[in-house]
Amino acid sequence: MSPTPEPAPRRLVVVGGVAGGMSAAARARRLDESASIVVLEQSAHVSFASCGLPYHLSGEIESRDALLLHTPASLHAALALDVRTGHRVTAIDRAARTVAVATADGTYDLPYDALLLAPGAMAVRPPVDGLDHPAVHTLRTVPDLDALTARVAALPADRPRRAVVVGAGFIGLEAVEALAHRGLDVTLVELADHVLPPLDPELAPLLADELRAHGVALHLGVAARSVTTGADGAALVTLTDGTRVPADLVVVNVGVRPASDLARDAGLTLGATGAIIVDADQRTSDPHVWAVGDAVEVTHAVTGAVGPVPLAGPANRQGRRAADAMLGRRTTPQAPVLGTAIVRVFGLTAAVTGASQAALARAGIEHEVVRVHGGHHAGYFPGAQAVHLVASFAPDGRLLGAQAVGRAGVDKRIDVLATALRAGMTADDLAELELAYAPPYGAAKDPVNMLGFVAQNVLDGTMPQWHAADLDAVRATHLVLDVRTAAEHARGHLDEALHVPHTELRDRLDEVRAAAAGRPVAVHCQSGVRAHIATRVLLHAGLEARNLSGGWLSLVLTHPDLVRPLQGARS
Amino acid sequence: MSPTPEPAPRRLVVVGGVAGGMSAAARARRLDESASIVVLEQSAHVSFASCGLPYHLSGEIESRDALLLHTPASLHAALALDVRTGHRVTAIDRAARTVAVATADGTYDLPYDALLLAPGAMAVRPPVDGLDHPAVHTLRTVPDLDALTARVAALPADRPRRAVVVGAGFIGLEAVEALAHRGLDVTLVELADHVLPPLDPELAPLLADELRAHGVALHLGVAARSVTTGADGAALVTLTDGTRVPADLVVVNVGVRPASDLARDAGLTLGATGAIIVDADQRTSDPHVWAVGDAVEVTHAVTGAVGPVPLAGPANRQGRRAADAMLGRRTTPQAPVLGTAIVRVFGLTAAVTGASQAALARAGIEHEVVRVHGGHHAGYFPGAQAVHLVASFAPDGRLLGAQAVGRAGVDKRIDVLATALRAGMTADDLAELELAYAPPYGAAKDPVNMLGFVAQNVLDGTMPQWHAADLDAVRATHLVLDVRTAAEHARGHLDEALHVPHTELRDRLDEVRAAAAGRPVAVHCQSGVRAHIATRVLLHAGLEARNLSGGWLSLVLTHPDLVRPLQGARS
Repeated sequence: MSPTPEPAPRRLVVVGGVAGGMSAAARARRLDESASIVVLEQSAHVSFASCGLPYHLSGEIESRDALLLHTPASLHAALALDVRTGHRVTAIDRAARTVAVATADGTYDLPYDALLLAPGAMAVRPPVDGLDHPAVHTLRTVPDLDALTARVAALPADRPRRAVVVGAGFIGLEAVEALAHRGLDVTLVELADHVLPPLDPELAPLLADELRAHGVALHLGVAARSVTTGADGAALVTLTDGTRVPADLVVVNVGVRPASDLARDAGLTLGATGAIIVDADQRTSDPHVWAVGDAVEVTHAVTGAVGPVPLAGPANRQGRRAADAMLGRRTTPQAPVLGTAIVRVFGLTAAVTGASQAALARAGIEHEVVRVHGGHHAGYFPGAQAVHLVASFAPDGRLLGAQAVGRAGVDKRIDVLATALRAGMTADDLAELELAYAPPYGAAKDPVNMLGFVAQNVLDGTMPQWHAADLDAVRATHLVLDVRTAAEHARGHLDEALHVPHTELRDRLDEVRAAAAGRPVAVHCQSGVRAHIATRVLLHAGLEARNLSGGWLSLVLTHPDLVRPLQGARS
Repeated sequence: MSPTPEPAPRRLVVVGGVAGGMSAAARARRLDESASIVVLEQSAHVSFASCGLPYHLSGEIESRDALLLHTPASLHAALALDVRTGHRVTAIDRAARTVAVATADGTYDLPYDALLLAPGAMAVRPPVDGLDHPAVHTLRTVPDLDALTARVAALPADRPRRAVVVGAGFIGLEAVEALAHRGLDVTLVELADHVLPPLDPELAPLLADELRAHGVALHLGVAARSVTTGADGAALVTLTDGTRVPADLVVVNVGVRPASDLARDAGLTLGATGAIIVDADQRTSDPHVWAVGDAVEVTHAVTGAVGPVPLAGPANRQGRRAADAMLGRRTTPQAPVLGTAIVRVFGLTAAVTGASQAALARAGIEHEVVRVHGGHHAGYFPGAQAVHLVASFAPDGRLLGAQAVGRAGVDKRIDVLATALRAGMTADDLAELELAYAPPYGAAKDPVNMLGFVAQNVLDGTMPQWHAADLDAVRATHLVLDVRTAAEHARGHLDEALHVPHTELRDRLDEVRAAAAGRPVAVHCQSGVRAHIATRVLLHAGLEARNLSGGWLSLVLTHPDLVRPLQGARS
């Protein structure tokens, strides 16, 4: 809440007419019918569905008009907003409280009492020679979409059409899917060693398998070096490992950076990442200027890291808060950002919330990792799909982050976990969550409850665990004990593992003890449930024992050389 | 945490081998390999999927074996449990710490150090003459299912087969769906004036329409009076309004009561509802006896009401907690029950969490009701389905309860809201939830965020609202202003409403003022979004104005005489 509300400003100027900017303008009008509200948008489009662009490229959203949620005329009719497209703000005169505006017809100065900057982000241009090749596209704006759609439509239908997508982030993956839906042969190039870099490496192989199953060629751990024209007149993308990939079109999406030049030139304070620094009310270092969206610096709720986060949800809520603040109203406390995000990759869904294991490691935050491969609904109800869940917990039990991949129910679990994270919930709290259960929808012990149960057991020492990433070290020092059924064992196992089905373990303890020969025992089953029982039996027998977190399913994700992961298989 | 851990008991006896009882036995074994654990189950089945019974009746779960998750043999092999089916406990000798057990072969006494009662609930027999008619069934146990399945299979296929289901609660609705899937003509009889009594009346018409659309005949507000044999030899169900419905089979599910006779006879303290009173560790009034599941009294998290809640999720978690407590371990604080529940009704899903409006009224808890008819994913992405959400908030913003009906995304929203309820979240918190957004999964402003936004506006006075339930009083005292489009207006409207599309309102204010003639203005649109803008315009113009909560969609749900609700239509 503003401690000393000022008189409401009469003239509001908003720079940027998508997501955050338009949310602010609409909220401001609803709060103040008498204010003058001008929205300046440099492009030809306002309030377009940025996140929908790949789905029009794919053809799934048939009408381009569906993406254009509003026009200046509809916004004037509904909200009495003065929306000016093709008007670019070139400078801010903070002393005079005016912005300089350039249009096709000339320039003008526009005075403001309160100024909101919602300039968004711009595509990063990677260090690739030939990015100005006419076959090279990006996918952030409506003109980008139009150009890409036109190029796809112009390609001959009588021969294979080839696309190269550079960058396997969220938008890159959506572009891959869209182009594949359109029938193109797609090659995906990613500098990181796995697709979707915000995802920790361990679940990424599920996405890679899904991409390959849909005919996508993957080049991981390499970058594009140049785009040239090949002998056949098409583009030729040369990778840093020397590979050459011919392409009828190239889509480059390797990330964005804050469009903060205007703010910087006006002397507003920027952070180290180049994003505009704002307070809890979205106010910049100038008390008459606010900022929202992809261009502002936010604090990560878990790691405390600061930087821009280009997500539509936070942008919209920041816009709403900025409107409240500009008009001197009570504002809701700005919640630090969780970075919740989701992407569809053909039949799979991948989603993240909170801190990844990599981010926790970078921030030096102590944590335990817990894995559950649970059914998206009751296993006895037909059609249950595996939800592969990985979550991190602080030693005091606090949830720090979660990631999930699967064919159904992933969005629900990540939304529940994002809500739990926002509330500061612990493993105990997750165990006690009372989620909706009937066989078509979930389980009496939902995978989210299971995360809580497992984390409780890990954190209080009931279940010591080991991790697939440590396989080499564990093999060298432990007896590996496989407690799965004979059938599961026959489908793939570690050569040196002693195989004792968990139902026979109590009768064969002497055999295990002899094989261990004083070494600790590294137990595993398929997903971790049966090996938990086995670990407890061994501990009670006086052996040192630990359970493989996530079981064989996690082992083969981390070591795909062992066997291709069997998606959908569960213990 | 137990303040003074006692030595772990060596002999654990569990009475009841489903859900809570079996969760306790399994957890106890994982914690203590050396304890003797005996599970006494009076029926022939343990650990069966009680919630799955209707889905085997329907044929959706093909194999009956799929419902039998474990057998005494599998539980012995995996967990070294001594599971005895067909063993009924007839008495507890608390002084001697023994239970008396009756079997087909005789009786015996079994000593315990710790006794867990998980007797569950039993079907209430409603006051209907002729309940012993051979056509009358219930659906709670495997033998119930077998009898019902056998009867359906025995019916002639060459004529219409008729079922009457008495009781439209969760299991009743599942039975209706199952029998309809089997091709029977189903008549549903419910004493309340709407189906699914735990749901507040306003969303129930969506379910009633769905039932009728699938050929189910509804008799609401009446009870069954008698079951007799008709002239054709089939059963004849006579209702309290005199209606006679012939039936080849009758399924009666009008609720359950705690199976607490054993506990009562042993002198354990019961509550006013007949359920066993337990402490936060599930301990009864006897320090050596614990109890879990449908037979124990729990406290409702919102209303503070005490009584049994027959839900699988809480039962399982209580079992886990009881095992920890019996073995002297740290227990998680028992969370009061939210009553989260969900049911599929053909293509619709209905779900509830927290307190209903009716429960809040009974408890005298002040609250504001907020309604959102939002898309289950972005409206511009094909296939968006309406999620009809109703939520109640305390004056301080705290979420008190939520209900939802729709064709997709209902389970996700109720699970998020159940998590928010558990965390004590407010409208501000819901507004700030950072849920996963990509067009196939949600919206940048998810319906749950929208609930928060609307509640903020209602609670801080930005948006005064009126409710469909008050239509008659409002019509008598207000100008009703319909701000929808001409096309929407043409499809159905209140005769006396002044129709001014929201885009014309600012230019036609004088017309509205004249029509109001000093009366306040009751605005509405289709779902509440545009009328919010209009309400703000009117308030600024000095008129007293309020917005219809949930708009025309909520109005026609409450007053189905106005027009049949258009499911899926959204503003």
